[in-house]
Amino acid sequence: MRILGIDPGLRTTGFGIVDVVGADVRYVASGTIGTQHLDTRALPERLKVLFDGIREVVERYQPTCASIEIVFVNVNPQSTLLLGQARGALITALVTANLPVAEYTALQMKQAVAGHGRAHKDQIQEMVKRLLSLPGLPGPDAADALGLAITHAHAGKAMARLAAADGLGGNGKSSYRAGRSR
Amino acid sequence: MRILGIDPGLRTTGFGIVDVVGADVRYVASGTIGTQHLDTRALPERLKVLFDGIREVVERYQPTCASIEIVFVNVNPQSTLLLGQARGALITALVTANLPVAEYTALQMKQAVAGHGRAHKDQIQEMVKRLLSLPGLPGPDAADALGLAITHAHAGKAMARLAAADGLGGNGKSSYRAGRSR
Repeated sequence: MRILGIDPGLRTTGFGIVDVVGADVRYVASGTIGTQHLDTRALPERLKVLFDGIREVVERYQPTCASIEIVFVNVNPQSTLLLGQARGALITALVTANLPVAEYTALQMKQAVAGHGRAHKDQIQEMVKRLLSLPGLPGPDAADALGLAITHAHAGKAMARLAAADGLGGNGKSSYRAGRSR
Repeated sequence: MRILGIDPGLRTTGFGIVDVVGADVRYVASGTIGTQHLDTRALPERLKVLFDGIREVVERYQPTCASIEIVFVNVNPQSTLLLGQARGALITALVTANLPVAEYTALQMKQAVAGHGRAHKDQIQEMVKRLLSLPGLPGPDAADALGLAITHAHAGKAMARLAAADGLGGNGKSSYRAGRSR
């Protein structure tokens, strides 16, 4: 299983790819897709950059599933609306590439990566570095994206254990839905 | 010029296509793309239905540009976030099909179609029916979508007149940006 994690943002979207090999989660790649070079008023063009960027990552690394952060209503409603549109473009890039998409909250990601939901950005970066044996700290957006991929890897393992305990065998498909909460 | 108008919605998205032939705006087609058959929790699948639906309409009718409603922050922030994601998927379907996308508020559409911004849904349906010489009333979502296409047709004409008055000649590209307000 190769998981593409995505930290959605209209200005900067983070992505991170990990392989799940037995009990191991191994780093493959990570980075960001930025729209800073575009006029902030040019929403359609910005959404196209995000869509095309994710498609390029999918074509290059051929993940088998994706894990994206669930966004919430923000103090600034206009920002919420813009982030929602960015997330819509990103999810569309995934589903039209036939990738199953799991969704996790930032809280679930922090719990999976740092063991508690109050972890700060730099603690997530540090824990992702340790968990994936990286030579240096990943950037904050890439770290969150890798964290979301790790969260899905853990959820998949938990689902497989549950399925095995139930005598159902490992049903890969159901594990993709583990984190979906709406 | 063949314009695809879109009234974005996660549950129901309206679409309407018109041709601009000289001073005339002529009806081509209209309808809705619905996601009611899907689990409301399955956001990625719902976004895929919207994306695929718009792509099918684009392939069938070959519009040369698109006109989509600008959505605003709603009383229900969660609805706003869901609508934003739907709109992101719809815009992505347009820009990845290389269609220029113009954006108009509901107020601009109502002014263009009914002459004032306080027009009700049924007045928009009635005016769209009259303007396009339709045999019957279009549904409310299709009527709004046709109204957005008509709005863009009028904006295009106004821009062409302005350009002609400026001695600049008709610059088709700039007219696509006429309605964009952010």
